Amino acid sequence: MTANLTVAVDAMSGDKGTGVIVDAVRQVLAARTDATLLLVGDPAEIERHIGNNPLPEGRAQIVEASEVVTMDDSVAIALRNKKKSSMRIAINQVKEGRAAACVSSGNTSALMAISKFVLKTVPGIDRPAICTTIPALHGHTHMLDLGANVDCSADHLFQFATMGSILAQAIDSVDKPTVGLLNIGSEELKGNGQVKEAAELISNSSLNYIGFVEGNEIYTDRADVVVCDGFVGNISLKTSEGLARMISHYLKEEFMRTPFNKLVGLVAKPILMSFRKRIDPRRYNGASLLGLKGVVVKSHGSADAVAFANAINIALLAIDNDVPAKITEHMSQSLSSIA
Amino acid sequence: MTANLTVAVDAMSGDKGTGVIVDAVRQVLAARTDATLLLVGDPAEIERHIGNNPLPEGRAQIVEASEVVTMDDSVAIALRNKKKSSMRIAINQVKEGRAAACVSSGNTSALMAISKFVLKTVPGIDRPAICTTIPALHGHTHMLDLGANVDCSADHLFQFATMGSILAQAIDSVDKPTVGLLNIGSEELKGNGQVKEAAELISNSSLNYIGFVEGNEIYTDRADVVVCDGFVGNISLKTSEGLARMISHYLKEEFMRTPFNKLVGLVAKPILMSFRKRIDPRRYNGASLLGLKGVVVKSHGSADAVAFANAINIALLAIDNDVPAKITEHMSQSLSSIA
Repeated sequence: MTANLTVAVDAMSGDKGTGVIVDAVRQVLAARTDATLLLVGDPAEIERHIGNNPLPEGRAQIVEASEVVTMDDSVAIALRNKKKSSMRIAINQVKEGRAAACVSSGNTSALMAISKFVLKTVPGIDRPAICTTIPALHGHTHMLDLGANVDCSADHLFQFATMGSILAQAIDSVDKPTVGLLNIGSEELKGNGQVKEAAELISNSSLNYIGFVEGNEIYTDRADVVVCDGFVGNISLKTSEGLARMISHYLKEEFMRTPFNKLVGLVAKPILMSFRKRIDPRRYNGASLLGLKGVVVKSHGSADAVAFANAINIALLAIDNDVPAKITEHMSQSLSSIA
Repeated sequence: MTANLTVAVDAMSGDKGTGVIVDAVRQVLAARTDATLLLVGDPAEIERHIGNNPLPEGRAQIVEASEVVTMDDSVAIALRNKKKSSMRIAINQVKEGRAAACVSSGNTSALMAISKFVLKTVPGIDRPAICTTIPALHGHTHMLDLGANVDCSADHLFQFATMGSILAQAIDSVDKPTVGLLNIGSEELKGNGQVKEAAELISNSSLNYIGFVEGNEIYTDRADVVVCDGFVGNISLKTSEGLARMISHYLKEEFMRTPFNKLVGLVAKPILMSFRKRIDPRRYNGASLLGLKGVVVKSHGSADAVAFANAINIALLAIDNDVPAKITEHMSQSLSSIA
C-alpha cells in the first residue's frame, strides 16, 4: 500500500460515532476505486460497524488507536497526554508516509495543534489556516481563515491569500483564481491597519488580486478566494449558519401554518427539497488545514455519512493536486525572491 | 411646535429620491397623530411630491436646505463645505431644539461625523456606535457596533453594551435586556484581547451580561443585545444580507424551473409572500446612532417608503423613551462611581 491516494480517517471522533464514518468510507471506496482508506480507532468498534458487509479487499485497513480526543479536552491534554488517540495516530500516518492525508471530525483546536506539532508547517508559513468552501450565487467561494488565527498580521493575511489561491486552483481547476480581502464598506474608514497593509502586499504579488470584498460579496462570486483573519472569518461563517437555520425554520413554519398550507407543502415538496439540497451544508463539509506538510481536513463534528464522505473527497482532491507541495514551491519562490 | 415628538427628516438624501420620503412622512403622520415632521430640503422638490394631496395641517413643515451630501462626498467635504446640506440642517434642528430626532438615508460616514460635530457625544461616551435590530427565531436582537468604529478597546465595547441595553429597554420595553459579547467558538483561543477584557468590564457592571455569544446565536434570541466592534459587526451584517439574497434567489429559481414548478409557485404564492415578509429587511430599516446628545437614525440608502417610515418610527420610539437622556444618566452614574 503506498501513501499515494491513501487517506487516514479518524474513526473515533465526531458526535455521530464510528458507524457514520464506516458508512462514509464505504461510499468513498465505491466512488473512488483508486483510493485506499485507513480507519484509525478501536478495532472492535470499527469491526462491529463493518459487520457482515466487508469493505473492498485491500483498499481498507484498520489501524489501532486506544484513546479518543474529546470535544472538551484542552489542547495541552490532547497534545501531551493522548499520544495514542485516533486523531494523533491518524496524523502520524501522514507523517510516517503511510497516508497522504488525514480526515477528522474531532476538536478543531486539538486537530490544529497536533497537526502543526507532528507535521510542521511549510517553510514561509507561520500559521496554518482553516479554509472552507462556501456556496455562492453561481458557484462557490473559498474562504480563510475561519478561526485558527485570532490576531493576524498583514503578512499572515498574505500567506492565507497564497494558500487559498493554490487550494482553489486545485479544487476548481482554475488557472488564476481571483483573490479578495474581506473588508467593510464604509468609505472613510476602509478597514483596519492589517487589512490595508495586506492589500498592498497582495496587490504587489503574482496573485490575481481584485481588491476589497464586502461581507455580502462572499455570496456573489466576486472572488474565488476570500481572505480574512480567523476572528472575522469564524463570525461570518457562524452568522451564516445561524441565518440559514432561521430562514429554513421560517419556511417550514409557513408551510405548516394551516391544513391548506400543509397540502401545498406536500405538492411543493420536491421543489423545496431541491432548494434545500442547494444550501445543504453537507455538500460543503470538509475544511482544509492549509500550510502543513501534509493534507489535513476537518469535518464538522455532527457530520453524517454524506457529509463525512465529502470531507474525504476534499482530502483526495488535495492529494490529486498535490496542494502541500504547491504551497511549498510557491513559498520557496517567494522566500528566494525576497532573499 | 415643540421639539417633543418632532422629527427632522432629511428629504434629499437616499437613492430613491424625495418622493419616497414624502410618502413615508404621509404614512407616519397618519399612524402617529401625536408626531410632527420637518421635511428638510429643496422646497420646490418637496412641494412637487406633496402635489395636490397636502400633508396634515400643522403637523408637517418644510425647512429649506440648498445642498445635498452625496454618497461620494468625503467626510471632510460633507462637514466643512456643505453647511447648507439637508443632512446638516436636519441635524441642526435637533441641536437647536426644533426637533428631538433626525432621520437620514444619506452617506453613513458623513451622517456620523456631522452628528458628532454638531450634537456632541454624551459625557463618558468616546465614540457613537451604530445599532440595528436584527430578526431572530422568536423575536429580534439589537446589534452594535455595525461599522462606525473599526478598532475598539474593551472600554468602547463596554460603552456599546451600555447603550445597546438602554436602546433595547426603550424599544422592547424589557426591564433588564440580556447582553452578550460576540466571540468565536474555539475553546482554546476564545477571542482576542479586547473581547476578553470587555467581558470582565461588562460582567462587573450592572448590565444583565450572559457571556460570549457565537455568530449563529445572533439569530437564536440568546441575547437581546449583541456587542462587537464595527469591523466584525459590519461584516456579520453584510454577510447576512448576501446570504439572505442568495437564498431568496435560489428559492425563486426552484419555483421557476419547470412549468409545473411555476404552477405550484402560483398556488404557494401567499405562503411564500408570508415567508418573505418575515425576512423583509424593510421591517428592520433604521439604525440608531447611539451616544449622541440627540436621536439620529440612519435609514438604508435604498429604502422605499415602508422602510423609511420604519426608520422614522424608530426615531419616535427613541424620543418616546428618552434614550439619549437615559444614556447620559447611566454614564454619569458610571463616571461618578469611578470617581
